[in-house]
Amino acid sequence: MKSVAIVGASGYTGRELLTLLERHRHLRATVVMTARAGAAPEPPAFPGEPSIDALDLGRLAHVDGVFLCTPHGAASSIAAAALQLGKKVVDLSADFRLRDPAVYASTYGSPHPAPDLLQQAVYGLTEHARDAVRGARLVANPGCYPTSILLPLLPLLAAGQIDAEAPIIADSKSGTSGAGKAPGERTHFGNVHENFVAYGVGTHRHAPEIHQAAGTDRIVFTPHLLPTFRGILSTIYVTPAPGASAATMRACLAERYAAEPFVRVYGPTGSGQSGPDPRLPELRLVQHTNQNHLAVAASGPLVVLVSVIDNLQKGASGQALQNMNLMLGLAEAEGLR
Amino acid sequence: MKSVAIVGASGYTGRELLTLLERHRHLRATVVMTARAGAAPEPPAFPGEPSIDALDLGRLAHVDGVFLCTPHGAASSIAAAALQLGKKVVDLSADFRLRDPAVYASTYGSPHPAPDLLQQAVYGLTEHARDAVRGARLVANPGCYPTSILLPLLPLLAAGQIDAEAPIIADSKSGTSGAGKAPGERTHFGNVHENFVAYGVGTHRHAPEIHQAAGTDRIVFTPHLLPTFRGILSTIYVTPAPGASAATMRACLAERYAAEPFVRVYGPTGSGQSGPDPRLPELRLVQHTNQNHLAVAASGPLVVLVSVIDNLQKGASGQALQNMNLMLGLAEAEGLR
Amino acid sequence: MKSVAIVGASGYTGRELLTLLERHRHLRATVVMTARAGAAPEPPAFPGEPSIDALDLGRLAHVDGVFLCTPHGAASSIAAAALQLGKKVVDLSADFRLRDPAVYASTYGSPHPAPDLLQQAVYGLTEHARDAVRGARLVANPGCYPTSILLPLLPLLAAGQIDAEAPIIADSKSGTSGAGKAPGERTHFGNVHENFVAYGVGTHRHAPEIHQAAGTDRIVFTPHLLPTFRGILSTIYVTPAPGASAATMRACLAERYAAEPFVRVYGPTGSGQSGPDPRLPELRLVQHTNQNHLAVAASGPLVVLVSVIDNLQKGASGQALQNMNLMLGLAEAEGLR
Amino acid sequence: MKSVAIVGASGYTGRELLTLLERHRHLRATVVMTARAGAAPEPPAFPGEPSIDALDLGRLAHVDGVFLCTPHGAASSIAAAALQLGKKVVDLSADFRLRDPAVYASTYGSPHPAPDLLQQAVYGLTEHARDAVRGARLVANPGCYPTSILLPLLPLLAAGQIDAEAPIIADSKSGTSGAGKAPGERTHFGNVHENFVAYGVGTHRHAPEIHQAAGTDRIVFTPHLLPTFRGILSTIYVTPAPGASAATMRACLAERYAAEPFVRVYGPTGSGQSGPDPRLPELRLVQHTNQNHLAVAASGPLVVLVSVIDNLQKGASGQALQNMNLMLGLAEAEGLR
Repeated sequence: MKSVAIVGASGYTGRELLTLLERHRHLRATVVMTARAGAAPEPPAFPGEPSIDALDLGRLAHVDGVFLCTPHGAASSIAAAALQLGKKVVDLSADFRLRDPAVYASTYGSPHPAPDLLQQAVYGLTEHARDAVRGARLVANPGCYPTSILLPLLPLLAAGQIDAEAPIIADSKSGTSGAGKAPGERTHFGNVHENFVAYGVGTHRHAPEIHQAAGTDRIVFTPHLLPTFRGILSTIYVTPAPGASAATMRACLAERYAAEPFVRVYGPTGSGQSGPDPRLPELRLVQHTNQNHLAVAASGPLVVLVSVIDNLQKGASGQALQNMNLMLGLAEAEGLR
Repeated sequence: MKSVAIVGASGYTGRELLTLLERHRHLRATVVMTARAGAAPEPPAFPGEPSIDALDLGRLAHVDGVFLCTPHGAASSIAAAALQLGKKVVDLSADFRLRDPAVYASTYGSPHPAPDLLQQAVYGLTEHARDAVRGARLVANPGCYPTSILLPLLPLLAAGQIDAEAPIIADSKSGTSGAGKAPGERTHFGNVHENFVAYGVGTHRHAPEIHQAAGTDRIVFTPHLLPTFRGILSTIYVTPAPGASAATMRACLAERYAAEPFVRVYGPTGSGQSGPDPRLPELRLVQHTNQNHLAVAASGPLVVLVSVIDNLQKGASGQALQNMNLMLGLAEAEGLR
Repeated sequence: MKSVAIVGASGYTGRELLTLLERHRHLRATVVMTARAGAAPEPPAFPGEPSIDALDLGRLAHVDGVFLCTPHGAASSIAAAALQLGKKVVDLSADFRLRDPAVYASTYGSPHPAPDLLQQAVYGLTEHARDAVRGARLVANPGCYPTSILLPLLPLLAAGQIDAEAPIIADSKSGTSGAGKAPGERTHFGNVHENFVAYGVGTHRHAPEIHQAAGTDRIVFTPHLLPTFRGILSTIYVTPAPGASAATMRACLAERYAAEPFVRVYGPTGSGQSGPDPRLPELRLVQHTNQNHLAVAASGPLVVLVSVIDNLQKGASGQALQNMNLMLGLAEAEGLR
Repeated sequence: MKSVAIVGASGYTGRELLTLLERHRHLRATVVMTARAGAAPEPPAFPGEPSIDALDLGRLAHVDGVFLCTPHGAASSIAAAALQLGKKVVDLSADFRLRDPAVYASTYGSPHPAPDLLQQAVYGLTEHARDAVRGARLVANPGCYPTSILLPLLPLLAAGQIDAEAPIIADSKSGTSGAGKAPGERTHFGNVHENFVAYGVGTHRHAPEIHQAAGTDRIVFTPHLLPTFRGILSTIYVTPAPGASAATMRACLAERYAAEPFVRVYGPTGSGQSGPDPRLPELRLVQHTNQNHLAVAASGPLVVLVSVIDNLQKGASGQALQNMNLMLGLAEAEGLR
């Protein structure tokens, strides 16, 4: 039995990790702390919830791994302390996702707080970085939108299935849990319910992360806010390279992910392979799971990729646990069904 | 005071028309009928609702105009009868939207029921067909998705602002009222709530209508089902022609629609022109109105158009009333605020 | 054409009043101000919304009536200023609802800010205070929960239909707009959506108001928060007095409200009187209206009253406009359909 | 490892059982069948879902226990066949809940299909029938509403804490999953979303079940339909017996359920015992769990009990698994965390 600390445990991703760890056979959350220096400990808000202790970096000495569930900017100093103690760190914030400190500065509006640590950070899109994650001391856990977009795109880009000159469009829709637990105008019930809105058009902070990981900045990304709590659906439009088609792309993805427990590629017409009623991925099919479901369909001159994940699991805490399992030498899928 | 008949009054679009007509100063619904031959009259389901009479085409003789709120296929014979009586007809179904009977047949899976009437049908996207509508005997009211997509696109295509070779992507999201009042799997609460799904990828029946009205079939259209009741938001991606940009497109749309009461073009950064808090169109800003709100933003190599309407008003009954007002010589905005 | 000021126009009730006044033929909102002294004017947050000016009590001199849409405690001083200028005032806050300053103090936790004005305030449950409202200078607009509960109860209590010794239970469920526009924990989307909760059990501030207006404190009131935006449904349980029954209570209410345009009493089994499909009141039947729908049904030894209103109209701004219409000598239903 | 059959696996309760059994260490669903004689097998509707085989009663010979997830009326003959084979049966339908065939006939409108089996059926409200369930061959799994109402009431009635003459009011609110998977008017998204309604006032089929289990018919039960998918909240009003109070009732419940893993009694003011922020039970605290959370509060002359469960777990499949675990000699909480 190994142990982890969760720093920043009161937010949605911290709580999701606690829930996942309840079913983990080889990992326990023995340190559960707030991320804010000087903040008071929090007794359980509800029956059955854990207490959250005050921040005490010394307690990190007693665990094997550390999850950082903190806002961007706050993770760096805690990460440095944990690494100093020789601990494995998975950071769920954006602090170590962008390799270039200058891109971080222009994206987040302030200099990178720990540029020296950027070198050793591994970008933890698990299915595409498994070996690097296994040997990493510090993993930057991918953003939720990027995860939903990169899983379908990376194999197709690598295989030359996508026209290298044409723009790629990622039209993404997310539930409100992606905006976090703190109340605000954007997530006020009266502003979300029976409503729908695009935001950050051309300016969202996940675009540079997507560009870096895909190795191209011709991806146009537009996020939208759904009146749901969980889930991201990304509708992605690509121009097939000569010789490529929906069928070749589907085959490419099916082959690439055939052995992956957390990615499922739908058959032609989005069918459930054997079912009489062809379907496309839906949020509810992946909510409360670490799954990514993918479908591929032709639409006029383009090919449409539909990708769904649970933003709090595969888009955050689930993938973080996948990564931590690997870093601690445990079975990758442990605690994730 | 003039009078109209509503045929097919028990569905969502028929009821919306009844609500709109309650506030109309010069038009009354004096005939309110079901569309199904042989169907029994329907007493009001709720206090305050109107009774719906059995179908009796003879009663159309006593009105000035006829709204057909029927499923596609059912409208044609009623339209023929009403036209025979010399009545002005606005058909909210798909029966007269496609000019080419062969396209109708391949889209709807059966021969067109009244190909001889197609000639005289005017496609009633009011802001782009005002004069023709004024003189029309039969107006084919546009589909909800096409309305949300064509209003931003038509002026830009006409002005040569859009690269004529590149694909145009219309990623549309609609509330469930677009699927009608009859219960079914797709609109079961347990299948919609806390869910989101793409459907009809590459195959939706509104695509040929969009292609015909835009004069190009390079528009790739993907509809999605939102867990809301009302509203459509379309996110449209276009490649600017040489010399064009988000700024020139915004100016083009602002000029084209400056005098239009039902189209509003947002200022730069989607702002409310004078507001400190720049915003993009939201469903709730147009629900229960006949408005189309439009914003234009640059995003990498593309320009993004965000367009919102209420699918039951500007996307159906509101636009139908706009058209009927014109056909009967009334003020176009009467009954629509 | 007469004119009114709306003070506190940025909240939900202020905006609802602005919407209602757009359709009023004899009343205009010529002064639209924030309620907070020293607060900056607010340009429109969205296209088509009005600007909200800074607070300037001097401008009240130029209107006929004043609506106070302010939080409790803030209304009193503005009311005093307006009354000084001889203006008719409708206060939508709780400041003048409780006649006894001691009850106010124990309910709201601070002394009443203007006890001398309490004397002249009329409690404006319009259908039960029409003559007093007509002559009033200051009307205390009833709370939303009390309106939904008192309209069915008052006639039955007056007619001796309810056992005077037994408790009366009012189990009420409200949409979130009753909690106002300011974001907070309680109205965070993640805390409301797919959730339901009772609150203020035995302690809600509307209980003393209900007790005062009903003339009895044996009414047990429990509010709940629905995952909807608009509407209140109150399920009320009463013990029939000897000789009384669901039938006699229904007859009593039907007779009492026969001529009222804003109260509708359902027929036996909650039917729509003539309909084949008996129904009970639903939120959606009164949303965006000033209606109160009532049904009466027997259930074992008790009689159940089901009462629905739109909390922002009959429960706030609609009833406020009813009252202002009366105070200014206009038709009571003007602007309310 | 033991095995069970699920008959009627395509509905919500059948699917919930399948999900629960995935985590069960000692029980497997080896037979998964539709309940309708002659119905075709169903391939998985979605990737990852199980196939559902055609009905074949012979296959029941190979399992240890049988869950019947069928509509009322259909369960009896399958139950008889399974009992004949010596299998343990948990019936989730209403067929064996009412001991008196005459009450069944008047409640369900047709004679009881298997009155001879009624004798041996044990009403499986687990916490109040544990020993009987352990020895039972046939368990009638309680209804969802009754479970939420009886768990708080039974100990108080047994302890004489409730005035034996006064009515008890159970005002219950349920998510739509209680109405099942088949689409219909009542569960159409457009009829549920942004709506709320009471139904079956004085006539709901769960009332006789509640009366039988509580040993009194003075309980007045009113169900309502929430715009949520999962969860029931019942607000229950009782008159304290002489000497009783909210405090004594809370103590009574806390003591009665102290050792129960699936019932949690909140401390005074509904607090989380140690928390600074007193709370009442909420749907989301029990969704996807087999928990019943209870709070007790004084309100005027009455005491209010607030009770929440997940209708698909403690209100159906979770409690069914509790019962089956006992019947098969397994740990009661296995598969339920």
